[in-house]
Amino acid sequence: MRITLIGSGNVATHLAAAFKNAGHSIVQIYSRSLQNASLLAYHVKADPIDDLKHINPETDLFVIAIKDDAIGPVAEKLAVHKKLMVHTSGAADLYTLLAFSDHVGVFYPLQTFSKNKEVDFRNVPLCIEGNDNTITGQLQQLAQTISNKVYLIDSAKRKTLHLAAVFACNFPNYLYAIGQQIIAKDDLDFDMLRPLILETAEKVQHNLPSNVQTGPAIRNDKQTMDAHIKLLQSDPHLQELYTLLSQGIIKLETPRRGDK
Amino acid sequence: MRITLIGSGNVATHLAAAFKNAGHSIVQIYSRSLQNASLLAYHVKADPIDDLKHINPETDLFVIAIKDDAIGPVAEKLAVHKKLMVHTSGAADLYTLLAFSDHVGVFYPLQTFSKNKEVDFRNVPLCIEGNDNTITGQLQQLAQTISNKVYLIDSAKRKTLHLAAVFACNFPNYLYAIGQQIIAKDDLDFDMLRPLILETAEKVQHNLPSNVQTGPAIRNDKQTMDAHIKLLQSDPHLQELYTLLSQGIIKLETPRRGDK
Repeated sequence: MRITLIGSGNVATHLAAAFKNAGHSIVQIYSRSLQNASLLAYHVKADPIDDLKHINPETDLFVIAIKDDAIGPVAEKLAVHKKLMVHTSGAADLYTLLAFSDHVGVFYPLQTFSKNKEVDFRNVPLCIEGNDNTITGQLQQLAQTISNKVYLIDSAKRKTLHLAAVFACNFPNYLYAIGQQIIAKDDLDFDMLRPLILETAEKVQHNLPSNVQTGPAIRNDKQTMDAHIKLLQSDPHLQELYTLLSQGIIKLETPRRGDK
Repeated sequence: MRITLIGSGNVATHLAAAFKNAGHSIVQIYSRSLQNASLLAYHVKADPIDDLKHINPETDLFVIAIKDDAIGPVAEKLAVHKKLMVHTSGAADLYTLLAFSDHVGVFYPLQTFSKNKEVDFRNVPLCIEGNDNTITGQLQQLAQTISNKVYLIDSAKRKTLHLAAVFACNFPNYLYAIGQQIIAKDDLDFDMLRPLILETAEKVQHNLPSNVQTGPAIRNDKQTMDAHIKLLQSDPHLQELYTLLSQGIIKLETPRRGDK
């Protein structure tokens, strides 16, 4: 397929590389910054542009991988080319594109991407939605060229997934940061927590999290929880967070109590 | 070394196996349940007992791996044998043992253990504390036979580490459980979130979490956060949690904004 990428952020970068590796040709990379467009375009042998007026209409698909509030305005300008358009957002509706064309869909990779870390795209769940069965079929076929985990997901379910992803990814990362900051005050290195973080994530690859919950809250160990709240006395925000999370764990369903 | 394990929970199980694999001999396994003691004892070729009166004094070390509030009463009974005693708790003081003997220390593995999942003990950070330099040296030597990551950590710092571990392990696991429950309501499988969870943990193995934070809060994307709060309207606890975590992320130091 001939694919044009709109955006040069983390999602655009990883998608462009995955498409290129699968044998598709990347026609152009658009970014408001020509420097960013050029950097990515160089890697995937595409033309960089920083003005939508320079769009090459000889393409099969526009992949719009930019901030949610910019999707509509950009789609409006691309619609004139009458080509298939998809966005890559978990939170944005299909309607964001439908306002301008009915040849539209969604191509949402349920993963967190960083520029400095490679990801095996074959394991990235791809959530596909097309405005009609033909489009859905086309997107499904395209998705299967880069991932083994392709799901047909409508806009309502995609929003649920996006919300769940915030709990499963963005919030845990913030808690890692809190852990790092707590031990840094005692001159302890984050390396001490890294194996624990990895093991916690590996454990739920073959178990449900509620079945492998450990820690003072699931044991309802009030003495330890009180001591922790006291240790956090200089930071009321962390005290509140500790209490709220512990209360949730205490009420967690299907726990195995007594674990250490 | 001849080692006697007091306890048959997750920590006792994994420690016993690691000691055995390193060539030490496990003398006895004590548990209040003879069945649990026997199960573990069978694996490490030790004698199971369910009464501290049957302790074999021909041992070099008692490893007390039981609930925090049971450590003191058990240590009191073991002290009569005048052998080296350690506990394995992150939250309990060295003083818990010092009340009964001065031949004591701490042997705290900073990891989360489950009975049904093996752990490579060479990568488990072991936090060692001895009541004097000789004991510290002995424990350090023993620790190095099973792990490449041995740290000398006093009781105050160990408590800090234990608190940080709650934030880096127990709380993230609870957030995974929330993610699972959110998508289960839409009949979506937890498999869809598993690669995301693993990647989030792998990302911080070579980065600081504050440098790789992603999601609506770090972009201060109010529209998405408001939509998420609305999606959570049937659960005030989750709404409160979402708000508190997002507020923390917005205030996070050294972030790279604009990530997707």
